[in-house]
Amino acid sequence: MTDASACSIIGRSLARVQQMLQEIVASRIDVLHAAARRAVDAGGKLLRPRIVLLAHRALGGSDETSAIAFATTVELLHAASLVHDDINDESSTRRGLPTAHAELGARLALITGDFVFVRMLHALSASHTDILPGAIRLLADACAALVEGEAQGVLRAGDFGMTENEYFEIIGQKTAALFAASAELGAIAARAGAEASERMRRYGYELGLAYQIRDDILDIVASAGSLGKPVRCDLAQGKLSLAPLFALRSSTRSSEYLRPGADPAHVVQFLHSCGALDYAATCAADHASNAIRALEALPPSTARDGLSALASYAASIESVTSPQSY
Amino acid sequence: MTDASACSIIGRSLARVQQMLQEIVASRIDVLHAAARRAVDAGGKLLRPRIVLLAHRALGGSDETSAIAFATTVELLHAASLVHDDINDESSTRRGLPTAHAELGARLALITGDFVFVRMLHALSASHTDILPGAIRLLADACAALVEGEAQGVLRAGDFGMTENEYFEIIGQKTAALFAASAELGAIAARAGAEASERMRRYGYELGLAYQIRDDILDIVASAGSLGKPVRCDLAQGKLSLAPLFALRSSTRSSEYLRPGADPAHVVQFLHSCGALDYAATCAADHASNAIRALEALPPSTARDGLSALASYAASIESVTSPQSY
Repeated sequence: MTDASACSIIGRSLARVQQMLQEIVASRIDVLHAAARRAVDAGGKLLRPRIVLLAHRALGGSDETSAIAFATTVELLHAASLVHDDINDESSTRRGLPTAHAELGARLALITGDFVFVRMLHALSASHTDILPGAIRLLADACAALVEGEAQGVLRAGDFGMTENEYFEIIGQKTAALFAASAELGAIAARAGAEASERMRRYGYELGLAYQIRDDILDIVASAGSLGKPVRCDLAQGKLSLAPLFALRSSTRSSEYLRPGADPAHVVQFLHSCGALDYAATCAADHASNAIRALEALPPSTARDGLSALASYAASIESVTSPQSY
Repeated sequence: MTDASACSIIGRSLARVQQMLQEIVASRIDVLHAAARRAVDAGGKLLRPRIVLLAHRALGGSDETSAIAFATTVELLHAASLVHDDINDESSTRRGLPTAHAELGARLALITGDFVFVRMLHALSASHTDILPGAIRLLADACAALVEGEAQGVLRAGDFGMTENEYFEIIGQKTAALFAASAELGAIAARAGAEASERMRRYGYELGLAYQIRDDILDIVASAGSLGKPVRCDLAQGKLSLAPLFALRSSTRSSEYLRPGADPAHVVQFLHSCGALDYAATCAADHASNAIRALEALPPSTARDGLSALASYAASIESVTSPQSY
């Protein structure tokens, strides 16, 4: 995902984050422990921890302890939100494994999400105390945004009157706010000044937008059967994203295709033929470019290259929007 | 609930807690804002904030800002846990008002609980920074205990083999841990030493046990139609508490009465006649006495009297366990 050298400079810290994640969700209650461990594993790519660690390095930080604590914190938040999302979406699998919801039922899944969430406090408390107050204020806002974004997603499901601006507002809250907080926490751990912190925040936010747009495209494309994901299209649940929103305002044939029960393969073909998938892919690439541009003022470093590589990854959708892939 | 003078010494701070609670759950998303406001209102008696504020005063504290921040934090935690409990228990009313679950459905109720929960970080960040690290570590443990207690409650529902010790362990986690944390947060705000903090912690823990035993008795008694509560008995959901556990080990007729679908009035009559309700009431009173004893080493003050009064209140069940009340 990142180039080899960027991986290696944070490799050891990332391993400590993974270890801390496993240790922190320990519980005397076996069922809860196992479910929390799976929830943390399901997060997968550790994108947010990578951002914290690379941002910290790119700004010349040397407080690895706090960077690791913050990296663990944001991953716990992400993992907890996925557990609760899976309940609300009634998802049965994530990354090929059964969700907590599928395995334990909604009651224990709700509690598992709460558990992973509250362990965030424990991770946070491992950071150095001089930067803790600032980190908490930042996380307080990011968490509120995350939850408000989820609420908007539920409230606006099936609303074909949603505008593109509203879509960006929702993904800004639901996804980009935590990416922005991750990058800024790296800056806080590095004791960076206001300007560098703001630059990192912007990097994270733009990267988060690119990443969510990409994820929404993949969700649509994968629903047609590629990528080995189960056919569970957000669109089928009434969740509109950038490509269908583009189609709705640019093609009069949209309502014919974007209706409940439509064949996913036909939907993808239509979104491709009317240019909606390309439009969304271009938007993702633009935001990834914005993210990379936000790093320009930083001195060149392997860590900065790593952050750029993450941004490029977040926009790497060309291959899946071409016809042969679905 | 407390004597008038104790109320008046924390009256102004309690009003600021109430104001902070209202302000902190503000959201641009109207539905979420309204639901979170109702969740915070549903908490009711502000028992935990009262403990924080009185403990802070009883230890000679003068950092009202941090005490108020901590008081708001523990109430948000409590309110959030009630919202999620109501989903898991499928409760339709609380304090005579519809629950978030009943009003908005499980999806938005889950998000409402998450929202109230994350706002805790905001409240916490209003405390003075020198005591923030200690407060976070303490809350991290209390939150984990709270969630683990909930998990145990779900996992052990319907388990007639549960022992009294296991019951105490569960209510210790589910309820007493947050009461203990509340009292200790008051001590932290007062910059009290380790011994005084430990004393407060014990006070809160014992009070929490008394309070939960009392609440469990009231749940059983109220299910027979008194107190104006809806007939929704934890026992009918398979949740065992102290009185039925006593009956199960002391009366061979227990299985005749403590079965699903039993008439609540008959259950209460039986638990009364076999001495189970008296036993539980005595236990509650004992723990309340322990709580009051933990305060003995403190210098006499109106605040200390207030804490004692809260403990007495937590054991005030005599009136409802006598036959004429059901």
